[in-house]
Amino acid sequence: MAEKIHRVVFEPDGRTLYVPHGQTLLEAARQAGIRINAPCGGTGTCSGCRIAIPQAPPPPTEACRRELTGEELGRNLRLACQTRVQRDMRVVIPEETRLGDQKILTDGAGRTVPLAPNVHKVAVHLPPPSVQDQRSDADRLLDGLADAGLSGLAIDVKVAREIPARLRELEFHPAAVVIGRDVVWLDKPASAEACYGVAFDVGTTTLVGYLVDLVSGRQAAVAARANPQAAYGDDVIARIEFCGRRPEGAKTLQGLVLGALNEIVAEACRKAAVKPSAVYEATVVGNTTMNHLLLRLPVDPIARAPFVAASASAHETSAKDLGLRIHPRGRVYTAPLIAGFVGADTVGVILATGMNESDGLRLAIDIGTNGEIVLGTRERLLACSTAAGPAFEGARIRYGMRAAGGAIDRVDLAGDRLVLHTIDDAPAVGLCGTGLIDAVAALLEAGVLAPSGLMRAAHDVALAPALARRITGADGDTGFVLAGKGETQGGAPILLTQRDVREVQLAKGAMAAGIQTLLEEFGAKAEDIEEVLLAGAFGNFIRPDRARAIGLIPPLPLERVKFVGNAAGAGAKMLLLNCDLRRAADDVARGVEHVELSQRPDFQARFAEAMVFPSSEGRWKR
Amino acid sequence: MAEKIHRVVFEPDGRTLYVPHGQTLLEAARQAGIRINAPCGGTGTCSGCRIAIPQAPPPPTEACRRELTGEELGRNLRLACQTRVQRDMRVVIPEETRLGDQKILTDGAGRTVPLAPNVHKVAVHLPPPSVQDQRSDADRLLDGLADAGLSGLAIDVKVAREIPARLRELEFHPAAVVIGRDVVWLDKPASAEACYGVAFDVGTTTLVGYLVDLVSGRQAAVAARANPQAAYGDDVIARIEFCGRRPEGAKTLQGLVLGALNEIVAEACRKAAVKPSAVYEATVVGNTTMNHLLLRLPVDPIARAPFVAASASAHETSAKDLGLRIHPRGRVYTAPLIAGFVGADTVGVILATGMNESDGLRLAIDIGTNGEIVLGTRERLLACSTAAGPAFEGARIRYGMRAAGGAIDRVDLAGDRLVLHTIDDAPAVGLCGTGLIDAVAALLEAGVLAPSGLMRAAHDVALAPALARRITGADGDTGFVLAGKGETQGGAPILLTQRDVREVQLAKGAMAAGIQTLLEEFGAKAEDIEEVLLAGAFGNFIRPDRARAIGLIPPLPLERVKFVGNAAGAGAKMLLLNCDLRRAADDVARGVEHVELSQRPDFQARFAEAMVFPSSEGRWKR
Repeated sequence: MAEKIHRVVFEPDGRTLYVPHGQTLLEAARQAGIRINAPCGGTGTCSGCRIAIPQAPPPPTEACRRELTGEELGRNLRLACQTRVQRDMRVVIPEETRLGDQKILTDGAGRTVPLAPNVHKVAVHLPPPSVQDQRSDADRLLDGLADAGLSGLAIDVKVAREIPARLRELEFHPAAVVIGRDVVWLDKPASAEACYGVAFDVGTTTLVGYLVDLVSGRQAAVAARANPQAAYGDDVIARIEFCGRRPEGAKTLQGLVLGALNEIVAEACRKAAVKPSAVYEATVVGNTTMNHLLLRLPVDPIARAPFVAASASAHETSAKDLGLRIHPRGRVYTAPLIAGFVGADTVGVILATGMNESDGLRLAIDIGTNGEIVLGTRERLLACSTAAGPAFEGARIRYGMRAAGGAIDRVDLAGDRLVLHTIDDAPAVGLCGTGLIDAVAALLEAGVLAPSGLMRAAHDVALAPALARRITGADGDTGFVLAGKGETQGGAPILLTQRDVREVQLAKGAMAAGIQTLLEEFGAKAEDIEEVLLAGAFGNFIRPDRARAIGLIPPLPLERVKFVGNAAGAGAKMLLLNCDLRRAADDVARGVEHVELSQRPDFQARFAEAMVFPSSEGRWKR
Repeated sequence: MAEKIHRVVFEPDGRTLYVPHGQTLLEAARQAGIRINAPCGGTGTCSGCRIAIPQAPPPPTEACRRELTGEELGRNLRLACQTRVQRDMRVVIPEETRLGDQKILTDGAGRTVPLAPNVHKVAVHLPPPSVQDQRSDADRLLDGLADAGLSGLAIDVKVAREIPARLRELEFHPAAVVIGRDVVWLDKPASAEACYGVAFDVGTTTLVGYLVDLVSGRQAAVAARANPQAAYGDDVIARIEFCGRRPEGAKTLQGLVLGALNEIVAEACRKAAVKPSAVYEATVVGNTTMNHLLLRLPVDPIARAPFVAASASAHETSAKDLGLRIHPRGRVYTAPLIAGFVGADTVGVILATGMNESDGLRLAIDIGTNGEIVLGTRERLLACSTAAGPAFEGARIRYGMRAAGGAIDRVDLAGDRLVLHTIDDAPAVGLCGTGLIDAVAALLEAGVLAPSGLMRAAHDVALAPALARRITGADGDTGFVLAGKGETQGGAPILLTQRDVREVQLAKGAMAAGIQTLLEEFGAKAEDIEEVLLAGAFGNFIRPDRARAIGLIPPLPLERVKFVGNAAGAGAKMLLLNCDLRRAADDVARGVEHVELSQRPDFQARFAEAMVFPSSEGRWKR
């Protein structure tokens, strides 16, 4: 309490701080969120943090004399890390000492955004009240934050109730946590740099969370979980139906996803040695159903014509009310949706790839449980959602699995011989999405599969004996042995069945028909597409030639195909790092034209046609 | 559901409504909050509601032909009350048919404010969703409200959860309740005109609530209660101490005031035949302690030097969270405070009297349990609070009571004879504030009281026998019989005691010393004051000559004294009727200079001096 406090004004922007006697200017500036260059880490062994003290500067320290020239000392320059505050002073930060807006690389598409988070945590020294200064505690705090550069803030009555006791506990030296325009919490001043956010990609099958340091903009950790709602249905329709059948259905599904998101927060925080209570904001992208199930918005109308969402807006809710275990005063921002089946994940893809700012025609394909497709330029963007099904995520495939250890992730044909690769080189356990695409492509090339998708029978004379030997069963119940007994973990062979091939045909047919419909609506041809962007959790691992061979992507030169990784998740991270993008997200959500495939009279025919595989350049002979 | 809907555009402002087939244009406009003149009440017997239908107007009805001239019919004018919507149409509302911003008389000071409430209730006809129109339910509603003139609104996730079911129940024809920028509730369309607010003056001793119709701006009812917190202390200091002594103290006091406010809402609604659930907003003015006790903000620092409030800001809270029984989605706005002991009630007085816009020097005195004083012009306003004590509200006075039936409210001297008046001419029960002032003034004039406040003994030779006979007791325990046994309800005499006179001296001394201090601070003299504004619940009943005689107000010509009634309450009503004034309230709260009397070294001496009564022109002889 008896600590002596001095007033320091930082020029050129005039930010005013109250600083305890003896603190260095570098520490003071950092606590107030003023970014000063300090390459040596504040040890007085470089001249990066030079600042000017125009009036009556303190005598230069030894380090100052070593690192600065006589001319510089004469211009009243000093090192911020060596200068201790002994009285009120005015300090000028030269342009070269100031760290600008940091550029943060957020995604595979290589876009950068300036760091401008919605959350700020700023340590301020407030003068204690006196009879000469009877401002209310809340006003005192707001004035202090305004001096530190955060003006126009408000304090809710719930927070105002705690402020008097909290300010006195912290001896009027709090680190204030500000979300948006609201002061939400007062923390200990030493914790001013512990300020985190988490960006969630809430998928139908997979949940990913990125823990981000909101002071540096760096990703601190990432964690993922399978969406436990899958126990109630692979796809969104099944889950919506579950909610309709059971009165507590929606609550059950919300509880499941929240439980998993809380596990992700806990795991990511553990990895990064961060307290969950230092996480103040979460951003969420997800498809419409995932968004509505998380927010407990009614899902029923999404699944029935005319397929409308309850709310397509971005929402901001209290983390505590929602049940997300970050700081109880933290907030959850859910990004806006485009239409019934085109959600905030697609908004994330568009933001992360910058399609909304692109002159050339680009096609983005986000392969998840649903397949979302976006086509267009900055002038016009079209989007649709196809019921691709979760085949590429391993569901509904006899030996399907997620891309984990033991998953067959590559299948190559060397002559008549199959060459398999498994994740971690472990004995094979099952088949993941990339392996599935590869296997189908290889069997098409080998002639085991006809373009219609029919698997040849073992006795078919056109097949090489080495391949024919691998075919089991008959009459639509055929299967192709990818890994024999000796090669698998369980000792049982791993097959690609006729049914699996049908699932792949449904998925890729839906995607291809969707792409064709958007092209027609846009008035363009496949060859006009300058860039195909493959997004999605497993997008990075797909081999484009194989995807093209099975007709999942249009027949374009492979150099036009680009991987953008989990672009939806990257979009969520961008929305966390730069809150101005939330307005851009609203514009995207409102501006993108949604094409409802189910209502187009030609769609069924186009879909049926697109289920046929492209004619192989390989050994298939009629 | 099968109801046919037409689109009607009202010019010149382009507001668009969806109207059921067959509804009259007058009804449609009213439901959407467009104000059309209709002196005959829409019965087709005047021409007040004439509107123009430029394209293909329907054939004129009999009433149209009767009320409009041939020339008018030729200009496609029709009566809105007679014109049923049979198809989409464009309607032009002539200037003379349009009701302008209504001017509402809100207070004794005669100020008017345009009706611009924070709450709107608007019936909209929304086109139901279709495959051609897949907007989300929330967007559909927001678009409909934007067409009706309310744009830029938002829907919170809690409200969004209810919208799908509610819209379908109401067949996409809801009356939306909008508070500020938020859609909070969907009501039945027939209830679109049931939209009320309540303005509270939360005083230390008295609570008053004004129920206001937010569509017409008219006051619908008023109700009042004694503040039940008085059981825990007459004044704010006693209540703050109670909170400090008892862990549940603050909760108890909040519960008491809320209970009484809820009774006021219930009573006012009963009187006006309004459902409490049709009340959507409450505004509150009160002194700092009343404000903090209501909001459960900590009160402890208010009572101890340096006397700071937890929060001086205006706050907006949920009525349900607070416990106020209006519509559960309703909101409570508490006006901002000036300083520790100068609260939102004073902000209300300043707004209601327009002192913040006055060129001439004005003095406002709000006589409640504390006495708040404001002095100044538009350029500079000073305010202080004096611990006047609740003497004028009947507390701490031996036979004191509130201004109810049987209270002696006037005391006149006719020669040596006292002439009393009681409220309702009932047998005397006690003495209210005005009676107290009158009694002291009369006894000063009669010489029973010396300017020092000393009451003469019965045997004092200078007194007329008729008066001397009324004096009882001796040596500081004297009393003056105002009403004898035969004149009172209980049969016991009603006295003004020496102690009562001391209470009056304390109260008026504090007020007078406060006024002198503000004058000095402002650099003005009493005679510079152009207008003295007497506010407060009982201000209207004070006789200014008597108030001047006892020195409660400065010795100025009586024509400069003006009564402004419950100006604090009038301010609360203005803040309810015109939400733009809330910004003005913030400016006033921040701009007024608070003068802390207790810290002025000269205040005690000035206070002691001011306790002396002005020398009587009457019979006092030394």
